[in-house]
Amino acid sequence: MNLAEKILAAHAGKERVSPGEFISARVDVVLANDITAPIAIREFWKLGLEKVFDPKKIVLVPDHFVPNKDIQSAEQAKILREFARAQGVNFFECGQMGIEHVILHEKGLVMPGDLVIGADSHTCTYGALGAFATGMGSTDVASAMATGDIWMKVPPTIKFVYKGKLPKHVGGKDLILYTIGKIGVDGALYAAMEFGGEVIDKLSMEGRFTMANMAIEAGAKAGLFYADKKAVAYAKGRGKRQPVVFEPDADAKYEAVHEYDVSGMEPQVALPHLPSNVKPVSQVGRVYIDQVVIGSCTNGRFEDLQVAANILNKKKVNSNVRCIIIPGSQQVYMDALRSGYIEVFIEAGCAVSTPTCGPCLGGHMGILATGEKCLATTNRNFIGRMGSPKSEVYLAGPAVAAASAIAGKIVSPGDLAT
Amino acid sequence: MNLAEKILAAHAGKERVSPGEFISARVDVVLANDITAPIAIREFWKLGLEKVFDPKKIVLVPDHFVPNKDIQSAEQAKILREFARAQGVNFFECGQMGIEHVILHEKGLVMPGDLVIGADSHTCTYGALGAFATGMGSTDVASAMATGDIWMKVPPTIKFVYKGKLPKHVGGKDLILYTIGKIGVDGALYAAMEFGGEVIDKLSMEGRFTMANMAIEAGAKAGLFYADKKAVAYAKGRGKRQPVVFEPDADAKYEAVHEYDVSGMEPQVALPHLPSNVKPVSQVGRVYIDQVVIGSCTNGRFEDLQVAANILNKKKVNSNVRCIIIPGSQQVYMDALRSGYIEVFIEAGCAVSTPTCGPCLGGHMGILATGEKCLATTNRNFIGRMGSPKSEVYLAGPAVAAASAIAGKIVSPGDLAT
Repeated sequence: MNLAEKILAAHAGKERVSPGEFISARVDVVLANDITAPIAIREFWKLGLEKVFDPKKIVLVPDHFVPNKDIQSAEQAKILREFARAQGVNFFECGQMGIEHVILHEKGLVMPGDLVIGADSHTCTYGALGAFATGMGSTDVASAMATGDIWMKVPPTIKFVYKGKLPKHVGGKDLILYTIGKIGVDGALYAAMEFGGEVIDKLSMEGRFTMANMAIEAGAKAGLFYADKKAVAYAKGRGKRQPVVFEPDADAKYEAVHEYDVSGMEPQVALPHLPSNVKPVSQVGRVYIDQVVIGSCTNGRFEDLQVAANILNKKKVNSNVRCIIIPGSQQVYMDALRSGYIEVFIEAGCAVSTPTCGPCLGGHMGILATGEKCLATTNRNFIGRMGSPKSEVYLAGPAVAAASAIAGKIVSPGDLAT
Repeated sequence: MNLAEKILAAHAGKERVSPGEFISARVDVVLANDITAPIAIREFWKLGLEKVFDPKKIVLVPDHFVPNKDIQSAEQAKILREFARAQGVNFFECGQMGIEHVILHEKGLVMPGDLVIGADSHTCTYGALGAFATGMGSTDVASAMATGDIWMKVPPTIKFVYKGKLPKHVGGKDLILYTIGKIGVDGALYAAMEFGGEVIDKLSMEGRFTMANMAIEAGAKAGLFYADKKAVAYAKGRGKRQPVVFEPDADAKYEAVHEYDVSGMEPQVALPHLPSNVKPVSQVGRVYIDQVVIGSCTNGRFEDLQVAANILNKKKVNSNVRCIIIPGSQQVYMDALRSGYIEVFIEAGCAVSTPTCGPCLGGHMGILATGEKCLATTNRNFIGRMGSPKSEVYLAGPAVAAASAIAGKIVSPGDLAT
């Protein structure tokens, strides 16, 4: 069996599972946020349910519109807070706040081998830990909150193997953008993506979270990594549960295998209005930008801010650009502060936000006006995603984002005058 | 003549002015923000005007909904930005952002002796520098942007004299709340408030800005302080223009004189739903709170964060409280960061926001849901001011705010267990 099949079989209490098979499985973590949890909670009450199956396994994170941007979001957050207090489930806000897909692994709530479901499409992020993690609808999540069970169809798996050596300024974001550019936004529709190869072995956990996070942008049900020593050490250092490491069999079956040689790869940019509309940065042309956003569940982790800070250090953001830095969690914020990065950002002329999904989904904290262009380290550049339907979003990694903030147009860090 | 009369006479080109007299006067600074500037700018175009009278004297500051909270606020900010670029006026956003009434004096744009008008009611803040500063409507501001002239009625002046010695944990916010509590929200209607006395002589510039800022909450046209050495040094260290110091005559006329002995004064709290509904903190009763906001044009300056940090140091915010710290400007943020206060706040479990007016006016960054109570260092606690019409806002200084964040209910710092 491949990685996805092994994890799903274990959670379905079966020796083997195969693609297309419907299974009922036990979940380890059930997640919802300030947009989806209120729907799930209302469904929970409507079904006459009283108690969640296991408060330790439920996580509610208001992260899309916090600190509350308006009365509606305040009322939504209140529903989560009251449910969390009444049921004793995990709940993170304000002083402990962060983007759900940054804080769950940071706080050790997801472990290798887990089956994770979340009422958010980017739940696939935890695949970086060797977990099967997938987004589901709020009513599925309501039912899982009560029973701890879900049903699903076992997906086929597509394998992606990355060979060669990553050039400077090229990271996980570039790998996944490149991949989506190759296979398209439906290239892995309802499939699991299994990532491997020598490049992945050397990739940081942050780089792997970024890649797993965007599996959904190729239509995938999940994006998985084998939990190697690095992943196990990451999880053990944070979690209270024991990791369970599944390894794909040597004769595992894959729907397809794609191999990419990444030596000589340039930083990648997804142009409007699809994450698959990808070009190497040198072929983007002259694109002046009004805003840069560095953050989100895709690239709001410590390493991302480190990459940006190293480029912005002793430089100034172009006067035509609003550069917004959004640490993914209070922990990321604190780590960046203690490393001197927050000072670098403020000195360079960036705004440093509280942790939030913020502008990524057009929530708040940097919404675009008509005709404005933004380069963001976020995950989607659909029409109107970050504000006006007449605005444009370009996606890239933190290195290109920081360099472009300085240049006022989309450039590679290598193009900056030193 | 009193202080207000002297400044107004000088700007009207007259030897003397008297209360009730209509004058035409030259202005030194014209200010507008992201709510009011778009109206002023549209009016400017509608009147067929082409150029502002002096770009150096116009200041546009998007501060209410930034970084842009939604498409509408993004479009508003864009109007300011395009006008500012075309006209070459002062414009501060993102990397230079801040609350208008924190950055104007911080950047040396207002000097002692100035006549300042702004399309924002808290323009009276600059009275702390010995300037006559007042809020006006957006159309008045549009006309002043073009001509540099305004007309107004000279207000009568009420004098406030503070004697004695300020106890620990009592500052400018407590003095002005106490005063408004005594005279009411219409106690200085269309009058100038002139603040003096031995307590004022010793008060920091920050404390004076806080007091002048809330003059409008007693209905005043302006709140003025004599520009002593402290004020002149503050202004000279920042501004490019020379300060002009006006001193009230010994035989100046006042509509009334109020004297308060502040020795033994407790920290003051304004209860819902008026800034005049003031009690000493010990008489507030047991009020549990959901949120604390430390910031705003009233109390978002360095000294305010210092007071809060000293109380929050090595303490934890109560788990039922969302404590939001909002530095008033990028400079305040940087100064607080370098002093270690931002680290103190994050360690204590606060959210640290980008500079913005934010929740003070129900803008964003901490809006209240039904039934929620907030203690804020802001300036108004009207019904629904910070969100739901069924929420409540209590006003206090940063010391009470920080202590209450720890206690989870409204307390004086002296009441905290050490």
